[in-house]
Amino acid sequence: MTAPALAPLAPAFRATVRDRLRARAAAAGLDGLLVLAPGNVTYATGWHFSVNERPMGLWLPVEGDAQLLVPQLELENALDVPGVRVTTYDEFPGEVPPVLWMIGETGARRLGIDALEGRLVDNARARLAHLDLADYVRHERVVKHDAERALIREAARFADRVLERLLAAGADIIHQGGTELDLMADATGHARAALMATHGPAFQGTKVGITASVHSGPRAALPHGAVQARQPRPGEPVIAGIGCSLGGYHAESGATFVCGTPTTKQRLVMRAMDEATCATIDALARGLPCAEVNTAALAPIRAAGLGDTIRHRIGHGMGVEGHEAPWLAPGDTTPAAPGMVFSCEPGIYRPGHDGWRTIETLITGNGAVEVASRFQSTHPPETRMLFL
Amino acid sequence: MTAPALAPLAPAFRATVRDRLRARAAAAGLDGLLVLAPGNVTYATGWHFSVNERPMGLWLPVEGDAQLLVPQLELENALDVPGVRVTTYDEFPGEVPPVLWMIGETGARRLGIDALEGRLVDNARARLAHLDLADYVRHERVVKHDAERALIREAARFADRVLERLLAAGADIIHQGGTELDLMADATGHARAALMATHGPAFQGTKVGITASVHSGPRAALPHGAVQARQPRPGEPVIAGIGCSLGGYHAESGATFVCGTPTTKQRLVMRAMDEATCATIDALARGLPCAEVNTAALAPIRAAGLGDTIRHRIGHGMGVEGHEAPWLAPGDTTPAAPGMVFSCEPGIYRPGHDGWRTIETLITGNGAVEVASRFQSTHPPETRMLFL
Repeated sequence: MTAPALAPLAPAFRATVRDRLRARAAAAGLDGLLVLAPGNVTYATGWHFSVNERPMGLWLPVEGDAQLLVPQLELENALDVPGVRVTTYDEFPGEVPPVLWMIGETGARRLGIDALEGRLVDNARARLAHLDLADYVRHERVVKHDAERALIREAARFADRVLERLLAAGADIIHQGGTELDLMADATGHARAALMATHGPAFQGTKVGITASVHSGPRAALPHGAVQARQPRPGEPVIAGIGCSLGGYHAESGATFVCGTPTTKQRLVMRAMDEATCATIDALARGLPCAEVNTAALAPIRAAGLGDTIRHRIGHGMGVEGHEAPWLAPGDTTPAAPGMVFSCEPGIYRPGHDGWRTIETLITGNGAVEVASRFQSTHPPETRMLFL
Repeated sequence: MTAPALAPLAPAFRATVRDRLRARAAAAGLDGLLVLAPGNVTYATGWHFSVNERPMGLWLPVEGDAQLLVPQLELENALDVPGVRVTTYDEFPGEVPPVLWMIGETGARRLGIDALEGRLVDNARARLAHLDLADYVRHERVVKHDAERALIREAARFADRVLERLLAAGADIIHQGGTELDLMADATGHARAALMATHGPAFQGTKVGITASVHSGPRAALPHGAVQARQPRPGEPVIAGIGCSLGGYHAESGATFVCGTPTTKQRLVMRAMDEATCATIDALARGLPCAEVNTAALAPIRAAGLGDTIRHRIGHGMGVEGHEAPWLAPGDTTPAAPGMVFSCEPGIYRPGHDGWRTIETLITGNGAVEVASRFQSTHPPETRMLFL
């Protein structure tokens, strides 16, 4: 018996999401929500649109039809979205700012807006009895439904495939003079072809794709540095960080390879990252607040004497966006709960010397955590070697 | 004699920009500007950074040193930016929102902020005697300096090369069963290789690249539709819209090809687009307000009986961003002035039937307009044919 084929989330899912959002608006004493953050609009409608300066709004009244408020050039695209009415404005910037026009269209007196430009706040308030700038949609997004988790799980498989290819072909590519850019192009091209062949037709019109970064040598100590035409050298670590989207849902997988046999000191670094990942899983399973998960996760790195190599939090939520709330970081007090999805990416950065990072996609369950990315489990640290 | 080789804008240019911004802040009675919009930060520093949820700030006091306010993981990247001090915050979201921390770091009482989230406005006001939410940086960006225009001009040449390749190779590709995606991959791959070979080394670390869309058949009537695995058919128009970035500066070029000899009705459409382009150039040369340029530009399309096929404004500013102010659209009263750069993109969209669009990059001068994109001038409408 084969598993049912994956498909984009159904219109019924979006309708359920909208009903839950209406309930949140009602509980907050609002007439409804004007949803403006692009990720939130996609979440509540399934519509993947071109994001530019022209605002796209979704009006969700507590009672009544959902309504897309879009520029005229998106009319036909918007009409294809199930379960919503469509109203258009002419163009951006327009004689009235489109968002103020949208507020008028809602007819609401007590309105929630998830993402409003600061310079429109006074003007928006003047049009309303009450303006609530909390982001109720993000509150809803943090716990993923079964169908969302299925997409994330499958996306993680294809992120893994980039790493598998890099491990299989990387040494040859470097041996032939290949650079970070060549490693990235080969491995992502390979996995992207597999992704499109498997899921491209069924997921047309959604966000499907693979992004990656490959860093080696001293510049690998810069987490957001550019991938370069640089050939990794014997003894160096090579960081590969992979993101994959399927049906608009995001997962990550990442590993650091060593060009040759790791030294004792390199093994210490790899062990510290593994221990950080285990500590993250343990803290998530216990339902700790996200900020405390971060503290617990970074403790093994500090204990290994590598505290001054930490440059970032242990991870972030993932779903409709590659980075989204909740944040496994200082300041986020959300308790970890079943159905949340997080990256776990311990990083060790030694400027001028080297950089290391692993990435897992973790799905929290009831007192347990599912590791959706599989590369690290199937390829333990001592196998992550590229023999040049 | 050869022209001097192009290079990224020099640190002296960024210092000049910052001095002009300080003067704007002083004239507005402010202690300085906290610049938060990513395009504005890049404009004033030359730094091309990874844009994500972690805010990057540039504090520009009327007197005193410019200061980058960045997350810890960007420390080394920020230290490479010439002419600025660097201060870091720990992580996002943090126990204090990073932007509120930045406001504290400025020590300003009267502060201009270009892009502030609505939900931080009240909190920001409570920390200041005066909060000015005008975007002074965008006001400065609208007129491009010589060195910026040189980059845009060169970017336009490489956008043209995508179209040249499509015209040269497109019919063969389609004849062999190729689709919109294949046309796009071949033409952009060709031009991207030329761009990187010519300018890649000198422009490393800046934004350099080519993006394109190719649309045929009835879906070409959707200006922002996805490029598909669809083979163009005899008689159909094929829209190609190209963007190119060099040194972080953006230009566009675009044309609509016909698969075969255009019919009389198709020639009418092509003529209307040409006339719209001429009307745009004329209106820009006369220094009309941008909204009136749009009205004048669309008049020939309306006069040709195609008014109901208009789906968008005639164009937008370009520079640090692909779309930026000023807007050739209703609501923008900025008078066209020497040194501004605009797209001019008359579009004719007939849902269920076909779509047409041409794109020029125009640079306004003194009573004249330079057409930086050259494809349309060197390939008149009657030569834009793909013989399948």
